[in-house]
Amino acid sequence: MTKFHRIAVVGVGLIGGSFALALRQRGFSGEIVGWDYAEVLGRAEGRGAIHRGSTELAQVLEGADLVYIATPVVLTIELLPQILRGVAFGTLVTDTGSSKRAICRVAQEARPAGVLFLGGHPIAGKEACGIENADPDLFVGAPYVLTPDPPEVFETEAASALLEWIREIGAQPTSLDPETHDWALALVSHLPQLLSTALASAIWDETDEDGLPIRIAGAGFRSMTRLAASPYEIWRDIGLTNADNIGRALERLGQKLERIRTALTARELEEEFRKAQEIHERLEALRSERRRS
Amino acid sequence: MTKFHRIAVVGVGLIGGSFALALRQRGFSGEIVGWDYAEVLGRAEGRGAIHRGSTELAQVLEGADLVYIATPVVLTIELLPQILRGVAFGTLVTDTGSSKRAICRVAQEARPAGVLFLGGHPIAGKEACGIENADPDLFVGAPYVLTPDPPEVFETEAASALLEWIREIGAQPTSLDPETHDWALALVSHLPQLLSTALASAIWDETDEDGLPIRIAGAGFRSMTRLAASPYEIWRDIGLTNADNIGRALERLGQKLERIRTALTARELEEEFRKAQEIHERLEALRSERRRS
Repeated sequence: MTKFHRIAVVGVGLIGGSFALALRQRGFSGEIVGWDYAEVLGRAEGRGAIHRGSTELAQVLEGADLVYIATPVVLTIELLPQILRGVAFGTLVTDTGSSKRAICRVAQEARPAGVLFLGGHPIAGKEACGIENADPDLFVGAPYVLTPDPPEVFETEAASALLEWIREIGAQPTSLDPETHDWALALVSHLPQLLSTALASAIWDETDEDGLPIRIAGAGFRSMTRLAASPYEIWRDIGLTNADNIGRALERLGQKLERIRTALTARELEEEFRKAQEIHERLEALRSERRRS
Repeated sequence: MTKFHRIAVVGVGLIGGSFALALRQRGFSGEIVGWDYAEVLGRAEGRGAIHRGSTELAQVLEGADLVYIATPVVLTIELLPQILRGVAFGTLVTDTGSSKRAICRVAQEARPAGVLFLGGHPIAGKEACGIENADPDLFVGAPYVLTPDPPEVFETEAASALLEWIREIGAQPTSLDPETHDWALALVSHLPQLLSTALASAIWDETDEDGLPIRIAGAGFRSMTRLAASPYEIWRDIGLTNADNIGRALERLGQKLERIRTALTARELEEEFRKAQEIHERLEALRSERRRS
């Protein structure tokens, strides 16, 4: 099934490393070359994610027919012009950034004719990052958003091959325009992250020398603060490039909390629980569907 | 180790059923009698949680030397006077309510001299309730708050026996006054629940006929909305009896969210992530401690 002979993975952390491991586990027979810090490259080779690596971007791009960028959003934006101008005609460049408008805009501006760009975002991750947490099954059952811009990129053979590999590693590709992606992700990813951070940080402010209240916290608090371990560096970039949507999502949630506060001793609280339960059920249904497919 | 000969479990749902199952699994050799709807009692007997049951409270209380009340908070408040006046002198009555001030107040008012009351709250639970979800290991590693009021109840033999059983089923007893309990729980339990509800309900408001945004939600959203499946009936009672503390907690969180919103593209966001990470680390440390002990 290989349509690619050499894949350059730019940033061999949790996502880039997992993608490389997943490809090799599913029988990718081409070469995978990594770009990162020397120390990370050593570990990525040790784990069998990449065949070889280099800290020189130009060397890694040489002869690659697919470039898979898996760096934080702002670094992706910085590297994109250099990558798009450094690859051969016909090469497909894709990325994994959690916000897509800024990245796709830069790609359109910097892309030479004949070089292909397809924005991507695997909705897979953990609060623990780095190559040491990479996992070939990370993408199994995960939505994988692609933001073809212009849409014609989908008609290329390279894009079809990437799609096939995305399905092969267990992810479920779906197509959205960058604007819709950024609004939807603000709601189901960026907002939940910041809520988890806000909750944990608010509890930090309240915690006394006796260890209260966290020493009597149970499983519910733990699941609501799991995301609080996520690295600031990743989220700083997402905040910077999706601030308008996230701000709007935070405002809506603020209104919802205010509504719940005033409904604490009133019947309207039931309506909020009913909606919440319905979302929970729909999520579970989506999850079973994905498992079946 | 049995100090009790007959335990009456009032409300044989998730908590009452799990307590009964846990006692029997750890060698409790006395009799366990349940009070609930006939259908629930049948299932509880079928699961081996109780020896026998009755829908008549007076029958269940007869001869019990420990009464374990595991009903929703408002029903507990309604039943308490009847229970405290219906048991023999020397009997220990305890409960499992998630808010403690209102319950302890009613208990103090209704308690005849010679009948003991010790408020309790196992910080264990699941979003799924009912005897069918009861689990003898539900309490393993869980904090178990006791609110002795007056403190002298701790010096009784019956209270010591209850404490021994709480440890025996794997929980970790800790003592707080009802006021501190209600404030601490508002922060680490009631607030997280309502945040989860608010998030899921806000997403319900935004969900379109195309299934966006939830059809591209990942694991982070799932963990943040796990609690959204919790039953309204339980939380209505908690809202009614702890509205002042929960209102205050919601206000603090609202301020925190506002701070995060204005810091989205600023350095101050890092401070919030740092605090959040520290809380996460402290939680993990507490958890390992509990596992070791």
